[in-house]
Amino acid sequence: MLGKDEGTELMRTIASHVRKGAMAYLRQQYKVVTIVFIVLAVVFAVMAYFHLQNGIVWFAFLTGGFFSGLAGFFGMKTATYASARTANAARQSLNAGLQVAFRSGAVMGLTVVGLALLDIAGWFLILDGTGLLEWVHAVTDQADQSEKLIVITTTMLTFGMGASTQALFARVGGGIYTKAADVGADLVGKTEYNIPEDDPRNPATIADNVGDNVGDVAGMGADLYESYAGSILATMALGAAAFAGSAVEGMQLKAVLAPSLIAACGVLLSIIGIYLVKTKEGAGMKELLRALSIGTNTAAVLIAGVTFAIFAWLFGTETDQWWQVSLSVVVGLLAGVIIGQSTEYYTSQSYKPTQKVSESSQTGPATVIISGLGLGMLSTAIPVITVGVAIILAYLCANGFDVNYTAQNLSMGLYGIGIAAVGMLSTLGITLATDAYGPIADNAGGNAEMSGLPAEVRQRTDALDALGNTTAATGKGFAIGSAALTALALLASYIEEIKIALIRTGEALPNGIEAAKATLVDFMNAYNVNLMNPIVLVGIFIGSMMAFLFCGLTMNAVGRAAQKMVEEVRRQFRTIKGILEGKADPDYARCVEISTRGAQHEMLLPSILAIVVPILTGLVLGVAGVLGLLIGGLATGFVLAVFMANAGGAWDNAKKYVEEGHFGGKGSDCHKATVVGDTVGDPFKDTSGPSLNILIKLMSMVSIVMAGLTVTCHLL
Amino acid sequence: MLGKDEGTELMRTIASHVRKGAMAYLRQQYKVVTIVFIVLAVVFAVMAYFHLQNGIVWFAFLTGGFFSGLAGFFGMKTATYASARTANAARQSLNAGLQVAFRSGAVMGLTVVGLALLDIAGWFLILDGTGLLEWVHAVTDQADQSEKLIVITTTMLTFGMGASTQALFARVGGGIYTKAADVGADLVGKTEYNIPEDDPRNPATIADNVGDNVGDVAGMGADLYESYAGSILATMALGAAAFAGSAVEGMQLKAVLAPSLIAACGVLLSIIGIYLVKTKEGAGMKELLRALSIGTNTAAVLIAGVTFAIFAWLFGTETDQWWQVSLSVVVGLLAGVIIGQSTEYYTSQSYKPTQKVSESSQTGPATVIISGLGLGMLSTAIPVITVGVAIILAYLCANGFDVNYTAQNLSMGLYGIGIAAVGMLSTLGITLATDAYGPIADNAGGNAEMSGLPAEVRQRTDALDALGNTTAATGKGFAIGSAALTALALLASYIEEIKIALIRTGEALPNGIEAAKATLVDFMNAYNVNLMNPIVLVGIFIGSMMAFLFCGLTMNAVGRAAQKMVEEVRRQFRTIKGILEGKADPDYARCVEISTRGAQHEMLLPSILAIVVPILTGLVLGVAGVLGLLIGGLATGFVLAVFMANAGGAWDNAKKYVEEGHFGGKGSDCHKATVVGDTVGDPFKDTSGPSLNILIKLMSMVSIVMAGLTVTCHLL
Repeated sequence: MLGKDEGTELMRTIASHVRKGAMAYLRQQYKVVTIVFIVLAVVFAVMAYFHLQNGIVWFAFLTGGFFSGLAGFFGMKTATYASARTANAARQSLNAGLQVAFRSGAVMGLTVVGLALLDIAGWFLILDGTGLLEWVHAVTDQADQSEKLIVITTTMLTFGMGASTQALFARVGGGIYTKAADVGADLVGKTEYNIPEDDPRNPATIADNVGDNVGDVAGMGADLYESYAGSILATMALGAAAFAGSAVEGMQLKAVLAPSLIAACGVLLSIIGIYLVKTKEGAGMKELLRALSIGTNTAAVLIAGVTFAIFAWLFGTETDQWWQVSLSVVVGLLAGVIIGQSTEYYTSQSYKPTQKVSESSQTGPATVIISGLGLGMLSTAIPVITVGVAIILAYLCANGFDVNYTAQNLSMGLYGIGIAAVGMLSTLGITLATDAYGPIADNAGGNAEMSGLPAEVRQRTDALDALGNTTAATGKGFAIGSAALTALALLASYIEEIKIALIRTGEALPNGIEAAKATLVDFMNAYNVNLMNPIVLVGIFIGSMMAFLFCGLTMNAVGRAAQKMVEEVRRQFRTIKGILEGKADPDYARCVEISTRGAQHEMLLPSILAIVVPILTGLVLGVAGVLGLLIGGLATGFVLAVFMANAGGAWDNAKKYVEEGHFGGKGSDCHKATVVGDTVGDPFKDTSGPSLNILIKLMSMVSIVMAGLTVTCHLL
Repeated sequence: MLGKDEGTELMRTIASHVRKGAMAYLRQQYKVVTIVFIVLAVVFAVMAYFHLQNGIVWFAFLTGGFFSGLAGFFGMKTATYASARTANAARQSLNAGLQVAFRSGAVMGLTVVGLALLDIAGWFLILDGTGLLEWVHAVTDQADQSEKLIVITTTMLTFGMGASTQALFARVGGGIYTKAADVGADLVGKTEYNIPEDDPRNPATIADNVGDNVGDVAGMGADLYESYAGSILATMALGAAAFAGSAVEGMQLKAVLAPSLIAACGVLLSIIGIYLVKTKEGAGMKELLRALSIGTNTAAVLIAGVTFAIFAWLFGTETDQWWQVSLSVVVGLLAGVIIGQSTEYYTSQSYKPTQKVSESSQTGPATVIISGLGLGMLSTAIPVITVGVAIILAYLCANGFDVNYTAQNLSMGLYGIGIAAVGMLSTLGITLATDAYGPIADNAGGNAEMSGLPAEVRQRTDALDALGNTTAATGKGFAIGSAALTALALLASYIEEIKIALIRTGEALPNGIEAAKATLVDFMNAYNVNLMNPIVLVGIFIGSMMAFLFCGLTMNAVGRAAQKMVEEVRRQFRTIKGILEGKADPDYARCVEISTRGAQHEMLLPSILAIVVPILTGLVLGVAGVLGLLIGGLATGFVLAVFMANAGGAWDNAKKYVEEGHFGGKGSDCHKATVVGDTVGDPFKDTSGPSLNILIKLMSMVSIVMAGLTVTCHLL
């Protein structure tokens, strides 16, 4: 990718401006996040000192955060180097542009998954192969391999908490940054002064393009890294628990390693898919989407085949288990494909729903908003039902189609659900490529506009950008779908941690059953984690509320930051003479600074809330309340996230549809109305919505890490 | 109220137009609803024939629907007669206007609660005093009084299903009608032609004013009737279950009658509160709000006192139970007050949050939308936490502060939660008055404008109207808060019905425990209704999704109906010559017709979905899935409803705040931006949002009525 030409002098300058701005922001963000990480690590170290945790948690937490940050950093490096090159390639042809953008996205996708697998494998080897766990007394010297594997896998989940924390800051901070800049640029530039998007006369353009990189690329990289690592780690823990009593030698270890193996093969097969993505000049949106889905679907089919081979090899073909568990992976893959298709249907301007949003612009901005919100809400049905069916199918496949709710069936079934999540994310190498590709195309368009390249180049990058809106929504669908599948696994891990904490303190369950011998079902009954328990209900209410509260905080943060940006842009238009005629340069740096400060300032409260609320819930309501909180947050967060991602994607493309010449085209009243929709959609799809899946998992991870505290002290 | 003068000739004509339109619509709606009721009654009769239900259900269902419809009808009669009189009284003074509007609202409030109590008492006397239950073999001749009371109270819940079904149609149909007209009138009139609200030149004005009556009055009347009856009926059922084994003679009957007694006293004490509401000329919003809250809070304090007396008399003062249960009522009352205050804070233009929404209009409509959505989301925190705390406190108070989760504690605790819901709604006589008063004031404003009354009259009705927006949001807060409290009671009733169905078919629980002897906790364990059961999780997902899907359907329905209205209004402005100069009359009737047809057409799908989905869930997922569905729908629906009601209220008042002269006042760009917010808020606060609490309860009621079917056949 770096071998491609970056284009004219002006293109180089602009790209370097964006690159510098992005790096400057990232440095700032990492500074703040580092402080948070150090504080939390100290808390964990103190907890370990009081035997509320084992002594590796604090360190595993730090490495998880570090690698997640690294994934975002590499992603952004790639993206900022790719945009000018994409614009330059788009000067030749649409296909050349697509290929540069898409392969650059692929570089990022592969980096993210590679880093995750590296980190997981490394930690596993260290914990399993060295005496580290014995040294910090996390396991006794007499512990057998089965016990040790359970401790290893639950410890590794704290590495997931590091990744989640980092991802939340990246998504929220980056999201606020990018949307403050975007909304600010659009509101004054497009709406008030009628100058085109990415026009160099607009002082917020550079900040807008920097934002695409820090929010949509670095944020998304950290996010999907977290999803990917999270689902693998949680499934490893489930495997350790489900096969703990297996009579077959080494079966437990095999079950623990299977998710990583599937994921690793997924990376390799994704590369094949990536090479299949190409298009012809003048291709419409449908052809572009088809080009991408050929790549993704090929990768999915290949992975399904390989999965059967992996399990046949690991589990042997004597029993039916190998193909039953493999079917669970296929269920996850299929669910991913359906969610992808549904997202495409609801957010691409090639289909009715988004076109209807465009049509409603004839009656003004209010109906654009109403119809977009309506569309987003309706679009939740297919993904939720798909995930619901996938959960039940994956569960039944893995436990041999036995509908009886026994402890053994439950463990195996949960492993099946976890492995389905791994299956859904196994194509991440390529789906992340399609996702990361979006902001690259967007930036390429910005670069083309600002460098004054011919109109057909901008047309090509616009086509790529519109495609990017849909693929980004698809990527978010994957992230939230896999989060919903992983969530049950995390609940099981929470129970496992409660068990370890009870064993550590020598306590029995509330109903007297010995902790070491208790099954998941015993735990549910002992802690009354049923739906008629008011504490569970209150937990669920708080969880649901958390999803909304979090979105409200981030939406308002964007609103506030955007308002400051609007005032600054207006000020520049007013006070800098000749700016509108292109005779004087706007003060880009000031806008970049405003976005950076806004993001730094606003990202703290929602992120810290996500950490504090599960801890408080545990201290007041105990185990049943925490489980309620997690389920409530999951259910509402899942649906809310799909709603926000799809509504946002649809608004953006509804605007693009009008820009293509429908209902009066660019500059018409209809166009203005859809710009309002697009602006509202910005925080929906790039700040609040995509943060929700991280929120869900971070709350689970925090609960897991704090399980020891919850067992020792709670009010009810 | 009818003794007051209706004003000038023109005022009378306009009022009679509105009255006729409203009645015509209501006739249409009742026609459609009657068909649905007959179909459902036949289904129930068939189910009774196959012993899946007792033989009174179908008839109780019909009467519930009938009385709920009657409550709406009377409410609308009152409101349509009151608006011109309010406008006329406002010609004298603000206080005179307030009093006519408020007392007319009170007539409606008292009618609703009176009808509910009449129906409940009547049914109870018939079922308890006659041999009807024995005659249809719902109870055997040998049944003791304790068993019989349980059957009576659960049978009476189906009367609640009738009320819920009627209420859902009234809310959704009326909501679509009113908002199609409102959005249509605003979009073309205010935004495109810059003519004031309720201007007689606007063809959609009459439809708009009719809409206020059919949606906000008839719809709300049916809605609150349903909430009121639902909470009393559910608590009666809980009382029958909790005190079934009481050693004290007649204790169970007393516990069953207590909720109705509290409610009846609440009605009487509300009247005192109603007489305390008055204001001075030139009063600001804060004074007006204070005038109302003096009335409401006095009623609340009086009811709290009387409750202690009631329970001391019923339960005797030998044990602590009388004051413990009374405390639960106080908890409910307090929770209601806090929810009311919080709603006021978030939706009244006297406070910061709504003013900030107005302020954000300086950067255009997009930021108005973003900040309104943000405000709505943040505003969910206080009500949810309040209800959460209330649930736990009411639970603990009623079972004597015993945190152990035993079957007996659970039953008593649930009774406490139910009685807290009754407490929250016991001030309904007056809170409904404040709520019903809103649309009366709105219509009075319309009448004043169309009749060309002097500007100060319109100013006075505007002040009353702005107050109405906040009180309406408060009313919705009560409806949804009580729904959240009642929901657990309905879950318990569902289990009770499952039990009755099992006893009828002679089956035991899945784990072998005899159904007749099983406690609630046994049921939870036997059906594995715990949070680690994938079926429960899938149910919760579907429930959450239902809340969004339902809102999406109703939002889109409003969008579609409004679009037709916009086209019609534009057509009339274009084709009828002299309409803008006031020389030619617009075709009001055509607009009324379009709204009516739109509402009839669009209300069916969402309403039927609410009935079909719980049945399907029961058939596929069984008992655990249904309970998941209900909890998921409750949790997400609760938060979503608060969000929508408050965001909608805030947008409306943010517009009013600008109209008061801030940020440029009427006609400025800021005003236009807030009109967009107001328009988006219309379906939020008057269609989708307030339907959610009915949806939640209707799904529970349907599940209860269909429990027999779920026990007999389900897939998983």
